[in-house]
Amino acid sequence: MKALVFDTALKIMDLPIPVPAPGEALIRVLSAGICRTDIEIKRGYMNFHGILGHEFVGIVERSRNSYLMGKRVVGEINCVCGQCVYCKMEMPRHCLNRTVLGIHNRPGVFAEYVTLPEENIHLVPNTIRDDVAVFTEPLAAAFRIVEQIPIAADDRVIVLGDGRLGQLVAQALWLYSKNTLCVGKHAWKLALLSSLGITTVHADEEIEGKADVVVEATGTAMGLDMAISLVRPEGTIILKTTREKGFHLDAVDTVVNEVRIIGSRCGPFRPALEALAMGTVETRPMISESYPLEDALQAMARAEDPDVLKIILHVSS
Amino acid sequence: MKALVFDTALKIMDLPIPVPAPGEALIRVLSAGICRTDIEIKRGYMNFHGILGHEFVGIVERSRNSYLMGKRVVGEINCVCGQCVYCKMEMPRHCLNRTVLGIHNRPGVFAEYVTLPEENIHLVPNTIRDDVAVFTEPLAAAFRIVEQIPIAADDRVIVLGDGRLGQLVAQALWLYSKNTLCVGKHAWKLALLSSLGITTVHADEEIEGKADVVVEATGTAMGLDMAISLVRPEGTIILKTTREKGFHLDAVDTVVNEVRIIGSRCGPFRPALEALAMGTVETRPMISESYPLEDALQAMARAEDPDVLKIILHVSS
Repeated sequence: MKALVFDTALKIMDLPIPVPAPGEALIRVLSAGICRTDIEIKRGYMNFHGILGHEFVGIVERSRNSYLMGKRVVGEINCVCGQCVYCKMEMPRHCLNRTVLGIHNRPGVFAEYVTLPEENIHLVPNTIRDDVAVFTEPLAAAFRIVEQIPIAADDRVIVLGDGRLGQLVAQALWLYSKNTLCVGKHAWKLALLSSLGITTVHADEEIEGKADVVVEATGTAMGLDMAISLVRPEGTIILKTTREKGFHLDAVDTVVNEVRIIGSRCGPFRPALEALAMGTVETRPMISESYPLEDALQAMARAEDPDVLKIILHVSS
Repeated sequence: MKALVFDTALKIMDLPIPVPAPGEALIRVLSAGICRTDIEIKRGYMNFHGILGHEFVGIVERSRNSYLMGKRVVGEINCVCGQCVYCKMEMPRHCLNRTVLGIHNRPGVFAEYVTLPEENIHLVPNTIRDDVAVFTEPLAAAFRIVEQIPIAADDRVIVLGDGRLGQLVAQALWLYSKNTLCVGKHAWKLALLSSLGITTVHADEEIEGKADVVVEATGTAMGLDMAISLVRPEGTIILKTTREKGFHLDAVDTVVNEVRIIGSRCGPFRPALEALAMGTVETRPMISESYPLEDALQAMARAEDPDVLKIILHVSS
C-alpha cells in the first residue's frame, strides 16, 4: 500500500498492508486530514518516525466484531493498556503505555490501510460526508474543554486564534455560550465564524473587558501573555496548543489574579460526531483544498500556508 | 509615631498617628512579621511607596464598634469597595478598587499605629501569643489552597520550598493529607517539619512517582519546571510565589498531560486562627529573630538571609 512516511524526511513509500493485532480492526482509509501536529512531527516533535496522520474516516475491512465489518468509522487516537495506574483511574488518554495514532509508536492514517483497537472505533452517521468526518478528532479535542470546565450560558469566552483549531473551539464553545468571541488575524477566517453568527474581532483591535474563559489556540509566543491579559481574576485559560519552545508565564499576574491555566488535549468523540451529524458545527467551509494520497507531499506543504485552513487527503472511495 | 518607610530607600521616620476613615479602626501594633513581599517591594515590586508591612497583631484603640475596643486583633489585608463587579461576584479579594495593607495604596503595619476597615478585623484567641498571631495572614494564604481545590486524605501532595511560605503550606496541607512531602534545600528547615511528622526530602534527591498536587513555594526560576515534572496527568500545580521575572512554562508537558496550574494569593483568616489556637500548625520554631521597631532596617536585612525563617518586629506591648 502507499503511505506518507516521515523518517529523516517526508516520502511516499510502498509498504505492506498492516496485519491487525488481536482486538484490532483493519480499516481502509477513505479520507484523512492534515493537522498542525503532523507539521510539528516533521520538525521533530515527539521524535516520531513512521506513517504520519491521525485524523481519518475509513471502512472496516477486517474485524472479529462482525457488527463493525464494512462500516464507515472514525477512531480515537490513543491506544491504551487498560492496566496502568491512569487507566485504572479512568484517565485512559493518559495511559502510561499508550501508543498514539501517527504520533507515538503507532503507524498513522496517511496510508491506504491502518489498524486500530476495536474499542477505539466509532461508527459514522450517514449524514456526515467523508471530508467532514475527518474533523471528528480535532472537534473532539475542542469538546474536551467542556469536560474540563463548566461553561455557563452567560460566560464570556474568548478564543485566541482563527486557525483550524481556533475555528472548531469557537464553534464548539459557542454551543454553550453565545457570549463567545474569536480573536484572529485573518479576515477571511474570521468571516467564516461571523457567517455562523459568532462574534469575531481582529487581533489588532482593543478588546474591552475581561473573559471568564480564554482559550489559547494560536500557538504563538505571545499567546499565553495575551490570554492572561484578557482573563478575569479566578478565570480560566485553556492551553490547546503544544509549543516546542514553551511560553513565558507572568507569575505576578497569574498569582495576584489567581488565574487557572489548564492544558487540554484529546476529547470525546460522541459529542463531536453528534455536532457534525446535526450540523451544529459547520466544517465544510474550512476545507481549503483536497489532494490524492499520491500528492501528500504537496498537501503537507500547502497545510503550512497560513492562507489555508483544512487540507484533506482523499485516499480511496 | 515611628514607622519603617520605603521611598527610594528604607528609612525609619517619625510620622503623625493616622486618623481612621469612617468604618475604620485605629490599631496599636504589638508585633509584625516580615514577609518576602516586603523584601520584593524594596526591590520595586508593586511600585509601592510608604509604610511597609502587612502581617501584624495589635490592640484596637479607637473604633465606633464598642465590641472591638481594646481587643487584640489581626486584620485581612485587602480593603475593598463592595461595589465593583468582583465584589458583587463574591470575590472581594479581587476588588478592582482595593487597597492592600503595606502593598498597594495603603500604609502598612511596620509602625506604631495602623488603620484598617472594621470588617477586616478578626479577634485573636487568648491562647495565641503575639509572635504567633503575626503568622495568621501568611497561614491564611496557605489555607487558600484548600478553598481552591479539594485535597483528599490520600492525595499525594508535594510542597516545593522549605522557606516561610513552604513551611506553612506543608503544615496546612498535611492537615488534609498525611501523604504530604516537602522538598527543600536546608536541612534545618526540613528538620522543623520532620519533627512534626511531615515527610521531607532534600531537593538534590530523586523523587519517585508523581503527585496529585504540587505547590510551587520556592520562587526560583526552576520552580515551575520542577512542579511540572512532578505532577501527574490532570494533576494540579498551585503557584504561590509571585516572581517578577515570571516562569518558563513547558507547553508540551502542560498540554499533553493536561496539567492544571492555579495562581493562589490571600486566604481565609478563620481556619488560620483556629489552627494557631489549637496548635495544629506550629509556628514558634519558625521564629528566628526578633527586633524592636527601631531596628527594623537591620531586621529587614536579616530577613533576606536564607539561613533565617521568620523575623518578628516587636512594636509595643
